[in-house]
Amino acid sequence: MLKEIHSPADLKKLTLPELEALSEEIRREIIEVVTRQGGHLSSNLGAVELTLAIHYVFDCPEDKLVFDVGHQAYCHKLITGRQEAFEKLRAKEGTSGFPAFSESEYDCFTAGHASTAISAALGMARTRDVMGGKNHVLAVVGDGALTGGMCYEALNDAGQSGTRMIVIINDNEMSISRNVGAMAKYLTDLRQSKGYRALKRHVRSGLEAIPHIGVKMFRFVERLRDWLKASLVDGKFFTALGFRYLGPVDGHDLKRLIRVLRRAKEETKPLILHVVTTKGKGYRPAESHPDQFHGVSPVYYVENTAAEEISAGKLACKELLALAENDIRISVVTAAMPIGTGMVDFGKAHPDRFFDVGIAEEHAVTMAAGMAFSGMKPYVAIYSTFLQRAVDQISSDVCLNSLPVTFLIDRAGLVGEDGKTHQGVFDLSYLRMLPNMIIASPRDARDLKRLVRLSAQIDAPMAIRYSKALEDMGARMQLSGEFGLGQWELLSSGKDVMFLAVGRMVQMAMQATIELMGKGVQAGVVDARFVKPMDEGLLRRVAGETNMIVTVEENVLSGGFGEGVLDWLTRQGLQARVLNLGVPDEYVEHMRVEEQLEQCGLSALGIAARVLEALG
Amino acid sequence: MLKEIHSPADLKKLTLPELEALSEEIRREIIEVVTRQGGHLSSNLGAVELTLAIHYVFDCPEDKLVFDVGHQAYCHKLITGRQEAFEKLRAKEGTSGFPAFSESEYDCFTAGHASTAISAALGMARTRDVMGGKNHVLAVVGDGALTGGMCYEALNDAGQSGTRMIVIINDNEMSISRNVGAMAKYLTDLRQSKGYRALKRHVRSGLEAIPHIGVKMFRFVERLRDWLKASLVDGKFFTALGFRYLGPVDGHDLKRLIRVLRRAKEETKPLILHVVTTKGKGYRPAESHPDQFHGVSPVYYVENTAAEEISAGKLACKELLALAENDIRISVVTAAMPIGTGMVDFGKAHPDRFFDVGIAEEHAVTMAAGMAFSGMKPYVAIYSTFLQRAVDQISSDVCLNSLPVTFLIDRAGLVGEDGKTHQGVFDLSYLRMLPNMIIASPRDARDLKRLVRLSAQIDAPMAIRYSKALEDMGARMQLSGEFGLGQWELLSSGKDVMFLAVGRMVQMAMQATIELMGKGVQAGVVDARFVKPMDEGLLRRVAGETNMIVTVEENVLSGGFGEGVLDWLTRQGLQARVLNLGVPDEYVEHMRVEEQLEQCGLSALGIAARVLEALG
Repeated sequence: MLKEIHSPADLKKLTLPELEALSEEIRREIIEVVTRQGGHLSSNLGAVELTLAIHYVFDCPEDKLVFDVGHQAYCHKLITGRQEAFEKLRAKEGTSGFPAFSESEYDCFTAGHASTAISAALGMARTRDVMGGKNHVLAVVGDGALTGGMCYEALNDAGQSGTRMIVIINDNEMSISRNVGAMAKYLTDLRQSKGYRALKRHVRSGLEAIPHIGVKMFRFVERLRDWLKASLVDGKFFTALGFRYLGPVDGHDLKRLIRVLRRAKEETKPLILHVVTTKGKGYRPAESHPDQFHGVSPVYYVENTAAEEISAGKLACKELLALAENDIRISVVTAAMPIGTGMVDFGKAHPDRFFDVGIAEEHAVTMAAGMAFSGMKPYVAIYSTFLQRAVDQISSDVCLNSLPVTFLIDRAGLVGEDGKTHQGVFDLSYLRMLPNMIIASPRDARDLKRLVRLSAQIDAPMAIRYSKALEDMGARMQLSGEFGLGQWELLSSGKDVMFLAVGRMVQMAMQATIELMGKGVQAGVVDARFVKPMDEGLLRRVAGETNMIVTVEENVLSGGFGEGVLDWLTRQGLQARVLNLGVPDEYVEHMRVEEQLEQCGLSALGIAARVLEALG
Repeated sequence: MLKEIHSPADLKKLTLPELEALSEEIRREIIEVVTRQGGHLSSNLGAVELTLAIHYVFDCPEDKLVFDVGHQAYCHKLITGRQEAFEKLRAKEGTSGFPAFSESEYDCFTAGHASTAISAALGMARTRDVMGGKNHVLAVVGDGALTGGMCYEALNDAGQSGTRMIVIINDNEMSISRNVGAMAKYLTDLRQSKGYRALKRHVRSGLEAIPHIGVKMFRFVERLRDWLKASLVDGKFFTALGFRYLGPVDGHDLKRLIRVLRRAKEETKPLILHVVTTKGKGYRPAESHPDQFHGVSPVYYVENTAAEEISAGKLACKELLALAENDIRISVVTAAMPIGTGMVDFGKAHPDRFFDVGIAEEHAVTMAAGMAFSGMKPYVAIYSTFLQRAVDQISSDVCLNSLPVTFLIDRAGLVGEDGKTHQGVFDLSYLRMLPNMIIASPRDARDLKRLVRLSAQIDAPMAIRYSKALEDMGARMQLSGEFGLGQWELLSSGKDVMFLAVGRMVQMAMQATIELMGKGVQAGVVDARFVKPMDEGLLRRVAGETNMIVTVEENVLSGGFGEGVLDWLTRQGLQARVLNLGVPDEYVEHMRVEEQLEQCGLSALGIAARVLEALG
């Protein structure tokens, strides 16, 4: 039946049993494609009926449907004319893993970071009001996204303004890992209608206490009940913010969903519709362990990675565990990503020193600053792209006070299939601009361990940035000894060209030297493991001894490591020839990391070619 | 009496009438100093009794007291041994306008941006728990700060964790301008105890309806009342987040404050204490117009500014008003700063297209992106330092989608007395790293108007950054005609040195050329009004014609304009000699702007000296 659905208009011709059958078909399609291509499984399986019901009741693209994060948008993509591209989900030229308005007029907004949908939808609703439009605006927000402060900023603004819009809370009791925070507990309370049940109990016991009930008494109880229901049971949190509240509704019951969405459509004020879904619905392994199936790696990914590749986050965690044995100050803060950042074992070993604050990067950073201020040694483990949320807190709360918070920045550099919303290619720039910040990036697994150990000795802000997986390069090259703060390492010499490479680009540069050797160019490699401060002694030596310095980094060039090198050389009055290689000034689309590196000219061959070109 | 108070310990010896007299004395001192030195008047006058009561009941610095923003911390400074430094408030070597832990052991945290205190305090409370300490932790948060999402992230985390801490909401019904949002309304409701009054009415009418009340009925009503009071009246919003709630309490009644703080001290769970104060208390002009007295400019500031200086924000607003006449798409978004950003008149003229979203920069940016997506042309007016809060939203929601949101970035560059927490010296770096972003900075009032007009034609993200006041340079130099996107302007020629200057540094550079002329150095000036994209034609010409290029910007060097010039020259293979001048890699303390410029080597004399030094 899915093949017949070319646009939401086709849905409207279906009967309820047909819609139900379609939802099963879509679920099978999602499972099949995600198992093959990788992607977000659990959250998408949970949102199938909800998506069908929305498109059945509303008229997109006139009505604006904004998915928060878009981990829930696969069904939406399948019924808005993208079935073919969906087969190549997250691959080059396939559909993106997130909504992308470059892809379809049905995608309002390109969202990859959580908690933005209510803000964006409010903007669209206000535009409609200014322009005199009639359309509806819907934001679909997971309960996990509600731990992010932006949602609250938007609810506060929308609730007070009274602008007509519908916020659907897709409450699957999980954010990415098990949900945290008081809001999660509150939603559970609503689900269990605790207040409502308590009310019934109280009223019943009250009524039992009175032998003769007059008409007035009955009316009193009725009035009391309505008033209580409105102000207490039905989402007191949201009504305090000026929203009306409908729900909770079973998010897999199409009939009820359609009914309640029709009611929501009539509403003239901002409305919360609370829908309860099961993450991973219809796929047993995902239903039992939804956090493990949040993001799924496809089979080819596993095949392509070398056997010795190691989860960098887990490795950092292991090192922290060793340090924490003898140091009560060591603690870990994550923002809803204990699994993704590899920090689960720390949480198990030291639950009292492990803080998962929800999707709340700003709070995570300032909370860690408070800890560091009062004597702890916190490690904040957050993906590079999500840490962008906390630039001001890193500056104003950590660096300005020069507090010893260490940032473990995972998924730095190009991230592959998650695509342009998730690239970790700005952190070197937004960290390097900040006074007091130390920035390091390990070339391999062993150096990551060394950097974590070193960080424990440092009484200042520090960032260690690394990609998802790191190789153990020990087998390939002689090992360095221990190194101090700001110390680079000369790995090989070459009179024509000297690479200054950061992180996993060290390995690429080494491969490039082999390519270059074949062309008669002698190139050497320095592991520039500290982006700030730089190893000025070694840099000066290199500038004097080589014909051309080539910086290589997985970061945009603006404000990155290469510009730092240029700046230093200029200040020293050293007229070295320099070539800066990095990510170009554009958002890099989803495809495999290898393909992205190639596109950015950062593969070994690409690097060699750029060097040859520069040499003429 | 104030002279006898050297530390909070001295407070504890005073009687209640003595404390009351002291509060009046402190109020007079604050008014006197702020009138002379400038600073935050209204918020500080409102918090005098609260601060005295806290220090009377708790034992700082063992107990940790964190002020949010610190617009309320002057009284705290006066009673913690800083009376002498307070006389030079916000001036060089005087006390900072905000808490600063470099200044005193009584200052936990250096906070200049709103909504961070609960996060920081939670970090301190968690440290205490890990370390086995006994101390109390208090966060004092203005109601305005509660519009910021970070507060909610922190409340959500703290409420669920159950960590013992006290959050005092200093509710003065204002943030910076009149408070906005549903939260403000909610606090008003609490103040008026609407729920409690309604409850009483209902119960009374219920009781009236029943002629004979038995013991059981009485017990039922009692039980119902207690349950309702706990769950409904007493801060349902906060209790939903897992906090206990005390209040509201009159924040100018020392006796009641002391009693309720003693009760709060016994609490073992996270607690909200809701204190109602009057902003500007005790100073009539400030009580009537607290927003105008939020930040006060001292007399010497007015004297030092030239007569032709114009509020840049007001100027931009005027231009927008002209544009908005014929273009319904033009709208303005501010984050609790309609007055500070000069946008009040737009709000008056077009209330339907003016959106003050509260201290919620993240939401402001993404909401504007939603507007731009659906056909509006929004202008987001936010101070440079506060826009740091929204770096991720500018990237992920605006630039990634290349949406036509224009940022009017006020208070860019060095900001003077507000000091290190408020310097606007990072924006060129955090914006330049982002693909699709256009960055411009006007040298004077006339060019600001031109840039605003130009922005209306541009269908892409754009930032216009300017300092608080701009001169009209028309009288001093020949005027440029209209200019296009990315076009610089050669203002004067010089064979030895060519300045490429940004924003108000153009004027500094011109003065520096006069200094240099006296030393026999011929220097010219280019107004590099576009930082991105750059005027590559003119840059190439300059690189070929001059002996030394000198970039001058009010931004840190890392990632700034100067590095952009270096990067371009390097990519072109042009071996020009370059000197980059800008703000050094440190947080610049409070003092007058002129003093800060001098300290950073960015005064006319400083620039000339650096050039002469480089020339040898």
